[in-house]
Amino acid sequence: MQDAGEYLARMRATAPLVQNITNYVAMNAMANIMLASGASPAMAHAREEAAEFAGLAHALSVNIGTLDPEWVASMEISARAMNAAGKPWVLDPVAVFATALRRDAGARLLALGPTIVRGNASEVLALAGGAAGGSGADAGDSVESAEAAARELAARTGGVVAVTGAVDYVTDGSVAYRVANGDAMMPKVTALGCALTGVVAAYSVNARPLEATVAALAFYGLAGEEAAKQAAGPGSLAVHFIDALHAMTPEALSAGARITAA
Amino acid sequence: MQDAGEYLARMRATAPLVQNITNYVAMNAMANIMLASGASPAMAHAREEAAEFAGLAHALSVNIGTLDPEWVASMEISARAMNAAGKPWVLDPVAVFATALRRDAGARLLALGPTIVRGNASEVLALAGGAAGGSGADAGDSVESAEAAARELAARTGGVVAVTGAVDYVTDGSVAYRVANGDAMMPKVTALGCALTGVVAAYSVNARPLEATVAALAFYGLAGEEAAKQAAGPGSLAVHFIDALHAMTPEALSAGARITAA
Amino acid sequence: MQDAGEYLARMRATAPLVQNITNYVAMNAMANIMLASGASPAMAHAREEAAEFAGLAHALSVNIGTLDPEWVASMEISARAMNAAGKPWVLDPVAVFATALRRDAGARLLALGPTIVRGNASEVLALAGGAAGGSGADAGDSVESAEAAARELAARTGGVVAVTGAVDYVTDGSVAYRVANGDAMMPKVTALGCALTGVVAAYSVNARPLEATVAALAFYGLAGEEAAKQAAGPGSLAVHFIDALHAMTPEALSAGARITAA
Repeated sequence: MQDAGEYLARMRATAPLVQNITNYVAMNAMANIMLASGASPAMAHAREEAAEFAGLAHALSVNIGTLDPEWVASMEISARAMNAAGKPWVLDPVAVFATALRRDAGARLLALGPTIVRGNASEVLALAGGAAGGSGADAGDSVESAEAAARELAARTGGVVAVTGAVDYVTDGSVAYRVANGDAMMPKVTALGCALTGVVAAYSVNARPLEATVAALAFYGLAGEEAAKQAAGPGSLAVHFIDALHAMTPEALSAGARITAA
Repeated sequence: MQDAGEYLARMRATAPLVQNITNYVAMNAMANIMLASGASPAMAHAREEAAEFAGLAHALSVNIGTLDPEWVASMEISARAMNAAGKPWVLDPVAVFATALRRDAGARLLALGPTIVRGNASEVLALAGGAAGGSGADAGDSVESAEAAARELAARTGGVVAVTGAVDYVTDGSVAYRVANGDAMMPKVTALGCALTGVVAAYSVNARPLEATVAALAFYGLAGEEAAKQAAGPGSLAVHFIDALHAMTPEALSAGARITAA
Repeated sequence: MQDAGEYLARMRATAPLVQNITNYVAMNAMANIMLASGASPAMAHAREEAAEFAGLAHALSVNIGTLDPEWVASMEISARAMNAAGKPWVLDPVAVFATALRRDAGARLLALGPTIVRGNASEVLALAGGAAGGSGADAGDSVESAEAAARELAARTGGVVAVTGAVDYVTDGSVAYRVANGDAMMPKVTALGCALTGVVAAYSVNARPLEATVAALAFYGLAGEEAAKQAAGPGSLAVHFIDALHAMTPEALSAGARITAA
């Protein structure tokens, strides 16, 4: 792939409008993180405008964190609209392993062929049909343990699957990368995973999904490393993280990205 | 008008209870911003309590950012209750240009005669029936291009219309002001426009809507300027902004307000 | 009771999964505060998964801040599931005095016998059937004025009632404690009360509800004191508060807790 910074530069040049049908916990943080990154986020979920709004957007992210059946219906409508228009969309299967409602929503959305799936190891394992060790929103499984499931899932959907954790794993079913950027305190800030899904969606506009996802993950993790240098805890980490996303240059990203072929 | 600081002092003396039927992205930031300013915000949206809650509140703000038909129905009920009680309410027509659902909600709420409309240029243009250049939640139009539409809209509703941007424009259809306070990084923090609408609502209690709106905009922009002096990016700007709203004195506001007759 | 720090150590050792059916304003702050404290929060509200999710959780918190009838139904389902499983749940009766919808929801949830009720004085007075002086979400009543109501309510439900304010009062109807930790600026940050309810729920796993609540309140207030030392206003207070929760050691809590028998 090209230098990671080139994907950042391209994303910022487009400032893509990304529609996000996401959970209530994440919405504010996600909007701030996407704005700081250089994207243009919009949260719109009503069934009555889902398809029309998708028509305006360059990309879509859907997230089942605080789902209910009405919201899942809107996610399906918007995902279908993106498919029909040939535009990318990203699925974030939050705690898909936890309840029947989540398993059903995950299966419905997966059947629509997301361009990219971004989840933790437990979520990817569950989505692929395996048993997840996690409970609640927290992953109990290692990234390594979900790599085979990620490849299988990518091959099945024809899309990209990203398993995020200490070292991220991204694959399209045949080619795979690992991204080692990030800081151990990031999981102590809520919704950073959810917001990352929106950043991945923004990067996937005008770029191949596999490399776009890898670059987005390196960008995100590197900003987390920068933020951690100044943070005294998860409260200040969240603040510095947004500043670091905003300050990141393509050059700094290319220099700091820790991407390897897997 | 009087010195801007006098409107701040009067608002804080009342600490008005403002009901906000607003979008999910803005709720937390809006509550914090209104509390720091000296108001008493409350978010209550259920159709079953909309009118009763409006009866308790000194003012109301309604915002269609993450609307659905149920929420719009509650906005209409609460707006009617404010009208019946002779209390002020403010409409924030977020992305009203984007979809049929939004255009319809905007038209319904406009027909109820909001005391004040607060939007960006694209939103005011669309609400006035013109064509907006914006997409998503971002304004693609200049404040200047929406001034005639703002005057027309104010004359039609009998209320005040505020177009916010680099330099804000506020009019009641005959008299108009410009407010030049603010910082260019403020649009990189999500929901600052939405939260401003709540602050405008708080200022409009016990003050003439035109001057109250002008003073609220100067207060808000000046706090943004103070925050920007210490900020390293949009993350820290958001934090310093709340501190600056809280620290602002009436004297500092009167000295720093950049208000001119238009 | 034991040293307050022992309850913190026990809570962190479990990292309890707490399901929160809470208001939109609080969700993000609550998740961050609970994560920083050492708990594992999850927000899940759909009627279709309420009971199943409750089955996974160690504790539950329910909060009527932005209620509607659907959400109240889910709260009832989840509370019943906790009761059936013998697991603790905490009720936060936000502004229960304000409208008929809230009074009805408060009565329904109270009838299910919450392990702990955590509210301000006006809310506890209203829940106990008395007249509250508050309006909006703000307490107009002193903690002292609600102490008799708290005892009566605790005796009636068989649970614990915590009235929070300048000095908190916690009782199981016979034994009572006062907790004097906290800072006067904390009420200027929205949702700190709501988030506290989740922290109380986390502490109540594997500990007696009365002492768990007392320890949680001391932990929370002491972190507020630490944060206030560095804060320039409510914006920075919120950030430092999360850092302080995360940095708090059991030893520091035991040393700084200001708990007295009432």
